[in-house]
Amino acid sequence: MFNKRIKIKALLAAENTGVDATVMGWVRTFRNNQFIALNDGSTNHNLQVVASLGEFDDTILKRLTTGACIKVTGQVIASLGKGQKVELKASTIEILGDSDAEKFPLQPKKHSLEFLREIAHMRFRTNTFGAIFRIRHSLAFAVHQFFNDRGFVYLHTPIITASDAEGAGEMFRVTTLPMDGSAPKNEDGSINYKDDFFGRSTNLTVSGQLEGELAAMAFSDIYTFGPTFRAENSNTTRHLAEFWMIEPEVAFNDLEDNMDLAEAFIKYVIQYAMEQNKEDLEFLAQRLEEEEKQKPLTERSEMGLLDKLNFVVNNDFERLTYTEAIEILKESNYNKKKKFQYLIEGWGVDLQSEHERYLVEKHFKKPVILTNYPKDIKSFYMRLNEDGKTVAAMDILAPGIGEIVGGSQREERLDKLTARMAEMHIPAEELNWYLDTRRFGSCPHAGFGLGFERLVQFVTGMGNIRDVIPFPRFPKSAEF
Amino acid sequence: MFNKRIKIKALLAAENTGVDATVMGWVRTFRNNQFIALNDGSTNHNLQVVASLGEFDDTILKRLTTGACIKVTGQVIASLGKGQKVELKASTIEILGDSDAEKFPLQPKKHSLEFLREIAHMRFRTNTFGAIFRIRHSLAFAVHQFFNDRGFVYLHTPIITASDAEGAGEMFRVTTLPMDGSAPKNEDGSINYKDDFFGRSTNLTVSGQLEGELAAMAFSDIYTFGPTFRAENSNTTRHLAEFWMIEPEVAFNDLEDNMDLAEAFIKYVIQYAMEQNKEDLEFLAQRLEEEEKQKPLTERSEMGLLDKLNFVVNNDFERLTYTEAIEILKESNYNKKKKFQYLIEGWGVDLQSEHERYLVEKHFKKPVILTNYPKDIKSFYMRLNEDGKTVAAMDILAPGIGEIVGGSQREERLDKLTARMAEMHIPAEELNWYLDTRRFGSCPHAGFGLGFERLVQFVTGMGNIRDVIPFPRFPKSAEF
Repeated sequence: MFNKRIKIKALLAAENTGVDATVMGWVRTFRNNQFIALNDGSTNHNLQVVASLGEFDDTILKRLTTGACIKVTGQVIASLGKGQKVELKASTIEILGDSDAEKFPLQPKKHSLEFLREIAHMRFRTNTFGAIFRIRHSLAFAVHQFFNDRGFVYLHTPIITASDAEGAGEMFRVTTLPMDGSAPKNEDGSINYKDDFFGRSTNLTVSGQLEGELAAMAFSDIYTFGPTFRAENSNTTRHLAEFWMIEPEVAFNDLEDNMDLAEAFIKYVIQYAMEQNKEDLEFLAQRLEEEEKQKPLTERSEMGLLDKLNFVVNNDFERLTYTEAIEILKESNYNKKKKFQYLIEGWGVDLQSEHERYLVEKHFKKPVILTNYPKDIKSFYMRLNEDGKTVAAMDILAPGIGEIVGGSQREERLDKLTARMAEMHIPAEELNWYLDTRRFGSCPHAGFGLGFERLVQFVTGMGNIRDVIPFPRFPKSAEF
Repeated sequence: MFNKRIKIKALLAAENTGVDATVMGWVRTFRNNQFIALNDGSTNHNLQVVASLGEFDDTILKRLTTGACIKVTGQVIASLGKGQKVELKASTIEILGDSDAEKFPLQPKKHSLEFLREIAHMRFRTNTFGAIFRIRHSLAFAVHQFFNDRGFVYLHTPIITASDAEGAGEMFRVTTLPMDGSAPKNEDGSINYKDDFFGRSTNLTVSGQLEGELAAMAFSDIYTFGPTFRAENSNTTRHLAEFWMIEPEVAFNDLEDNMDLAEAFIKYVIQYAMEQNKEDLEFLAQRLEEEEKQKPLTERSEMGLLDKLNFVVNNDFERLTYTEAIEILKESNYNKKKKFQYLIEGWGVDLQSEHERYLVEKHFKKPVILTNYPKDIKSFYMRLNEDGKTVAAMDILAPGIGEIVGGSQREERLDKLTARMAEMHIPAEELNWYLDTRRFGSCPHAGFGLGFERLVQFVTGMGNIRDVIPFPRFPKSAEF
């Protein structure tokens, strides 16, 4: 057995001076030919390893470059330096893997996020991305913990799907047919997919919701957590072609139950990360604070990262209808003074993200749940309200992020659902399996989707969604 | 708020007679115009609801058909019947969703697994699939719990990938280009993928391992748990085109550490399911026992499902080298009497599943870890042993399933890795990002992959892999 090390996080936490220890990790810096800052990824903090002057060969010392991997044995001693209570006095240092200082792309200085995105395979070794992906891990674990504690069944919905009826956007084709035009064709010249792998045209899923509803009609409470895809040519800081979604679906929940569940869920996972990743969050908060200082006073955000998270955890989300929101926006000085790019003139239009941000960041100054949108701007499966013109939809808007959750109570009445599908030209025969849930033991139910990367952005304060997923996929980019 | 019910699992566990309760769920059976067996998916057990004679309208009673969804309020009382300690004496019954008894595809009788596979959107509502997917949930949760407890970082590796260098099998193309031959071509007639969404040719991933290694070189311990894909035309009970894989990767682990981790992991998740899903496992065990009774005496398995699981949890896995295994197989009566389809004649050949099953089920009668395979039958990234002809691979073989884990210590030496890639005609320039881990702070490391559906098969005893994933994907099949 090679791996008899103690992790640096455990060593620093134990503060157990006098004992011998073996650590392994990567050199972050080597100062004064004596002090090694060593990191093994278990924590944002480095362990200070002391290679006392004169005790180690120059041949070893020369190889202690940034990025090198080493194994150190020694004694844990009290540290006289600032920032740590203990350090490791090295008795042996073994180089496991060299790192040519001239060629290693990460230097002990601050790199731009743009540069680090180019070397996504190396950015894990920086303080910033170490913190982000440890927080991402905690949030993912908290998702499972939250739903498991409440008796939900985790459902793996299919990634490859023949259904494109939801109309959530452009899809990626999945195929094993040749691309050069030699694929079999129908009489009208269109491709005949009978010879494709699945015997039909298939795409990457945009949502597991419809399949999730099938399972909720048996297990009552289910959730999905898996990758979803959009083939939209969006080169923005808010969009990815491949991202992870969490989609709970609950039989017997109405819209209010759905809001309660979503609010409790968001608070739980944020709280969990705040407890588990205190040091990582403090590091990111400080990083953001420094960024803010570069901005003109009027553009600085009023709250630091930790304040913002505490605020969300400790306050009720503001709940109002779309109709109420439209009134507020129409009456606002922002609208009257034409500060919005899209002025709110009447009921029925979709909100732009400038409107959502106004409500969240200026008007209410807290997360907002908007409900009961006009049916014409929402999906076919949302439950028609008694007014005949709105549906039981809900969007949760978060400060700095905008929409983080989209959900609804579902239309459980077969006649109303098929009527709506006909209106929207959605072919019922392709969704027969979905309609079966309304034919056999239908019931009120509701659910929502949360974009996991948006959540990670919110908790880490990162401005670009490409920085919160290990290997981002966007137009013209699929390296690694 | 609509959802103020108590879940049936909680009601049955509390055994709290005299209290009022509201339950909601689906009717499994309705006997003697009086006894409703109600299931809400929280447990395999039904709640007996008593609709006392004369207390309910015929119009309601007629609608209590199999599959109907109802809401019942009433009083929890001690049950005189067998099989449950409490039951619910209904005071009100509300029909939430009817189920036409003539059309509902599930009848209160045993259906074949083949038939149920055709109605994958309904099979969740059977005892068998209820049990299977609750166990699947527990196993998934246990995976996260195990790694989280040990400080691993959960890594989402990309689903869409430009890398096809691993050569793990046929891949699905992901594209937004037209299929009819109008996609742009190079001078030699091949497709020019510069206009494709990602500006290059992309596929669905077959493994997250290589990306996992990048992150392990920063966080020490990571794991993936996500979907992977094979476009092989395998119409068997053991293969899926889309399945979920768990791939831990650990810096500083050698082959022995890797075996210890995998064995502890498998035991942990099985133990967890045995604790959390006792009733579901008992149900499946009984189901299997009945199936076994249909077989001739000589073909029946010696152990029941629960015995088998207990045995795995409580015994050390047998560890031996490929070379030792070949000797055992060559010397075995099975080989001498030509009972194997593929006779073992010498060293260097790959084992067939008949050989693996012999070792596990006849020779050792326990899970087996085979190590140090000939390099020519294993992947390029496995660490070359000092003998120059074997690599530090490990396969874990389970009774009734065969290979459940494949892993190795990785080749961390840049020169040996690139030499091996050249031998195997793997273009180094395409894997430059992977080779960077060996250039900058390389270290010994190891990992493995576990096919999640194989694990679920093992724990549930299900013979066909299509029955342990909610919506199976296989050649010519991608409905729902």
